[in-house]
Amino acid sequence: MKMNNLLVFFIFSILALLSHAIELDFCVGDLTLPRGPEGYACKNPATITTDDFVYTGFRGEKATTNIFRNNVTLASANAYPALNGLGISMGRLEFGVGGVIPLHSHRKSEVIIVIRGTIIAGFIDTNNRAYYKRLEVGDVMIFPQAMLHFQVNVGRTSATAFVSLNGANPGFQLTTPSLFAGNLPAQIAEQITLLSHNEVMRLKRAFGTA
Amino acid sequence: MKMNNLLVFFIFSILALLSHAIELDFCVGDLTLPRGPEGYACKNPATITTDDFVYTGFRGEKATTNIFRNNVTLASANAYPALNGLGISMGRLEFGVGGVIPLHSHRKSEVIIVIRGTIIAGFIDTNNRAYYKRLEVGDVMIFPQAMLHFQVNVGRTSATAFVSLNGANPGFQLTTPSLFAGNLPAQIAEQITLLSHNEVMRLKRAFGTA
Amino acid sequence: MKMNNLLVFFIFSILALLSHAIELDFCVGDLTLPRGPEGYACKNPATITTDDFVYTGFRGEKATTNIFRNNVTLASANAYPALNGLGISMGRLEFGVGGVIPLHSHRKSEVIIVIRGTIIAGFIDTNNRAYYKRLEVGDVMIFPQAMLHFQVNVGRTSATAFVSLNGANPGFQLTTPSLFAGNLPAQIAEQITLLSHNEVMRLKRAFGTA
Amino acid sequence: MKMNNLLVFFIFSILALLSHAIELDFCVGDLTLPRGPEGYACKNPATITTDDFVYTGFRGEKATTNIFRNNVTLASANAYPALNGLGISMGRLEFGVGGVIPLHSHRKSEVIIVIRGTIIAGFIDTNNRAYYKRLEVGDVMIFPQAMLHFQVNVGRTSATAFVSLNGANPGFQLTTPSLFAGNLPAQIAEQITLLSHNEVMRLKRAFGTA
Amino acid sequence: MKMNNLLVFFIFSILALLSHAIELDFCVGDLTLPRGPEGYACKNPATITTDDFVYTGFRGEKATTNIFRNNVTLASANAYPALNGLGISMGRLEFGVGGVIPLHSHRKSEVIIVIRGTIIAGFIDTNNRAYYKRLEVGDVMIFPQAMLHFQVNVGRTSATAFVSLNGANPGFQLTTPSLFAGNLPAQIAEQITLLSHNEVMRLKRAFGTA
Amino acid sequence: MKMNNLLVFFIFSILALLSHAIELDFCVGDLTLPRGPEGYACKNPATITTDDFVYTGFRGEKATTNIFRNNVTLASANAYPALNGLGISMGRLEFGVGGVIPLHSHRKSEVIIVIRGTIIAGFIDTNNRAYYKRLEVGDVMIFPQAMLHFQVNVGRTSATAFVSLNGANPGFQLTTPSLFAGNLPAQIAEQITLLSHNEVMRLKRAFGTA
Repeated sequence: MKMNNLLVFFIFSILALLSHAIELDFCVGDLTLPRGPEGYACKNPATITTDDFVYTGFRGEKATTNIFRNNVTLASANAYPALNGLGISMGRLEFGVGGVIPLHSHRKSEVIIVIRGTIIAGFIDTNNRAYYKRLEVGDVMIFPQAMLHFQVNVGRTSATAFVSLNGANPGFQLTTPSLFAGNLPAQIAEQITLLSHNEVMRLKRAFGTA
Repeated sequence: MKMNNLLVFFIFSILALLSHAIELDFCVGDLTLPRGPEGYACKNPATITTDDFVYTGFRGEKATTNIFRNNVTLASANAYPALNGLGISMGRLEFGVGGVIPLHSHRKSEVIIVIRGTIIAGFIDTNNRAYYKRLEVGDVMIFPQAMLHFQVNVGRTSATAFVSLNGANPGFQLTTPSLFAGNLPAQIAEQITLLSHNEVMRLKRAFGTA
Repeated sequence: MKMNNLLVFFIFSILALLSHAIELDFCVGDLTLPRGPEGYACKNPATITTDDFVYTGFRGEKATTNIFRNNVTLASANAYPALNGLGISMGRLEFGVGGVIPLHSHRKSEVIIVIRGTIIAGFIDTNNRAYYKRLEVGDVMIFPQAMLHFQVNVGRTSATAFVSLNGANPGFQLTTPSLFAGNLPAQIAEQITLLSHNEVMRLKRAFGTA
Repeated sequence: MKMNNLLVFFIFSILALLSHAIELDFCVGDLTLPRGPEGYACKNPATITTDDFVYTGFRGEKATTNIFRNNVTLASANAYPALNGLGISMGRLEFGVGGVIPLHSHRKSEVIIVIRGTIIAGFIDTNNRAYYKRLEVGDVMIFPQAMLHFQVNVGRTSATAFVSLNGANPGFQLTTPSLFAGNLPAQIAEQITLLSHNEVMRLKRAFGTA
Repeated sequence: MKMNNLLVFFIFSILALLSHAIELDFCVGDLTLPRGPEGYACKNPATITTDDFVYTGFRGEKATTNIFRNNVTLASANAYPALNGLGISMGRLEFGVGGVIPLHSHRKSEVIIVIRGTIIAGFIDTNNRAYYKRLEVGDVMIFPQAMLHFQVNVGRTSATAFVSLNGANPGFQLTTPSLFAGNLPAQIAEQITLLSHNEVMRLKRAFGTA
Repeated sequence: MKMNNLLVFFIFSILALLSHAIELDFCVGDLTLPRGPEGYACKNPATITTDDFVYTGFRGEKATTNIFRNNVTLASANAYPALNGLGISMGRLEFGVGGVIPLHSHRKSEVIIVIRGTIIAGFIDTNNRAYYKRLEVGDVMIFPQAMLHFQVNVGRTSATAFVSLNGANPGFQLTTPSLFAGNLPAQIAEQITLLSHNEVMRLKRAFGTA
């Protein structure tokens, strides 16, 4: 048994030595190791190839069949571990006709660029002032850190946009699902939003939590 | 006229020289100068006294007469400029019977400590899971950065709590007022929240924006 | 033996996969895993409950029987692992009559709020200028990052204050114990402080290190 | 004259007071005020409109007539002041047939997404290892902070890509122009690169600095 | 008078426009402008020369005639404004025979390298454990952020060392002068250090503040 | 077998408990544990001694026999793990007669101090402007973050300099070796630098990669 442990120790040491042969130019996340507040531990550099740095998950068509008629594909550190520790990530937003990215916020700032179609994008500041505008192909809008924001397809066709955020794990919090799709009791939801009991129950039913 | 400008330059130079006689142990904000993304420019150190570092705005009783039966007094950099650049601030929360701090979020993390009464405090994570609990006098709860959270007085008396945030200007965004107390059009509010038209209009009327 | 290792690997992989099912909204510290410069590795999210986010260690009376007639209870990441990675912590300061929080500093900024009694609080800047003031119930004072500071109960009763710091592990360094309660040789202590040999020896005896 | 200065002071004070009516949700840069290391001072919030947050400079065709057969349009804080202080920016890269974004680096990490055409993108780490790959429409690649990197159009048509960087002023340094398009003496250029005298002179002639 | 102001505005605008013609590769501090928490505003780039980036204040002999038989020359942002915003600074330490850099701390980490002579250098951690060692020419020691530390010349000749700190304005706080060379009342000094009244008065007399 | 795993778990738990007995004043890197984006995991504090904090690798003579007639000895976190997480590191530069530190960059800012001899040091900004100057003994120069820079011995004797960088792992990228000493194909090297095919092949031969 002692031998077993020695061997485990030996293997770990070898791996560790290999791991530190290069400088920390990057730290591709190893999803099988414990993570810390700043991200994942680094994958063994000896196993890294160019493919680690390339993400192909945005290729092809994306169906927009959910309740919001959208598709959101996130290239954040979980899906694209090369971003780990580098403080940046991306997402692809696909809007069906009338599709919406509902009200949400995250702990990082975001820029959006429209690639196809016409959307209205906007955010609300802490004085309750909304900034929203019709964006055409090629237009960019900034949503500052932690501000509530949204996008709505207002064109006659589907639309596509890409977003970039200055964090590898930005943390997307959708306002309506936060209140009605989880375990928050209806009574608290009413008290902290001023929504009516009927409306709260209607939305909880819509999300299957009533 | 040339003389005028020379004099202006001279006065500014004198002020500037005085301003930089000490190291940057602190940077009490000068609210009359332009601010940058990291905070206000520093007040002339020659004019600083101990009083700059002490905030007395939490003294005394606070009436809880608004729609949420609460009173929120913020000691952030605008009200307490000594915090400028130091990355910390405080707030006093006063709850009438049944009083509520409604759903909100901010770009910084917060700790709350209950000083009087009994409240339920909670936050919701990005998986829509709510963490909420009854807090007694002396209890502390953490609300992580950017997460939606709330507090509700569930005792038979009024309640008091203090909060601290790790930013001098944390930026409080109240969810319901964001949607209904400002200039966001009702139609967009409906689309991005799934709330009914009637409920949106009821709330806009409550906030005087219908 | 090979099987043993495979099993270990398997168990770790399962744990790891569970660990990463949610976004990094928080990273409750797992004190049994190695820590990094930015904090502990994150506790398995599947085991987290609301209780992780609530700290109750400030409840009740705290005896002030030590040499400084104080009690300091720290809610930092070691005692309250939910703070890990979130950059904030708290402490409760209890002062007996004549009680003192002696001269100390830490790598993070601090705000204090007085809840009971009357204290003099102060700090000293790098120009040797002291800023100190009598604080009443409800008053707040800021102690900027790394500055030496102190609190003294000057009322006729015991006193209570809460402090918040913008770091999960602020690092408290008490000046007098640093010099006399540890292994620093008396001769060096004299040279680097200009204190007399007799005074150094008296204090080392007081701390049991002479 | 005293009156003049008083008036200047008065106007500045008024402007300043207006400027600080809202919290620092954002800090649209005012390019006419002195900037600090973290960015520009904030534009008077009273003058901000939605248009500040929208950038339309990527619209339309971009000619690729320079020596590298490329066009680079940067949406960084100078061109798009709403980014100021928010730590993110974008760029549009247009490649003619055979077009190249030559070797360069910057102090921030970058992600690229290909919108049209086929390119080879790559970076070199501090062990001189190059990671490069053919990217198709929709593919993303990460270039870690400060690493030398490049893109080459290898398709038969022109190509378009968008890049995002996690800084509002990332600082683009092109390796070859750094050496030959500025005031670096030829002799030093040779010594610090091992390039031959003839090659250095040829390149200086190409950039008009021989 | 109106014309005067217009002219001032015009000149400032011109200066401002010139100021922003280049990217923010550096931000040489302009000591005549207000500073913010992150440093000085940037000097007009049009006036910058190579000399801004070179500091020659360490040249020559430095007399060690003060009470500690040392000389400390600081190349921090005030003396060397090119460091502004770049997060690094240096100092030259000169020790006479028996010379001492007394107990002090600062908000940034420091490395020391010995160039001449033999010193004992050390720091104390928050557990009151002292780490100290004899350093010869070429030796390096690290003093972690905010920890109390010191250096003592233990050789038979004078000694020289250079220090580097990861901040442009590290903020040096000398423990003994903090207590006795400024305005801290003797009674408070006694209470917060446990020093005797006689010792406190002796030291205040030594610093001329009794 | 089960017992084996329990034992492994037990040993790890014991080690872990020991590891966290002190506050995080420092985090001496444990090179045998996985590292994260912010550095190595911390060595068990119980095994730390003063020697961990002292680096002696700069002692003695350094031969300057390579192609650049230099010797570079780096005291960064890999060689000097006490720097881990503290954001600072050092290097010793030794120049033979005519020796050169070739064109390079890194993600952190650097200061250089000349200890012996005479060098020309310089950097190039993103406008291709070179700032270079002859430095004598005692002179300091700053190389801002990510800017290309270099040093050339222009004296008749060998020279020595020390550099400090505000990162524990600054990441040195040498421009010419990046292009020619690794796996970058010659054709890409030509396209992204405008160097001639002959010159690229000559340099690849010099580095043994043709």
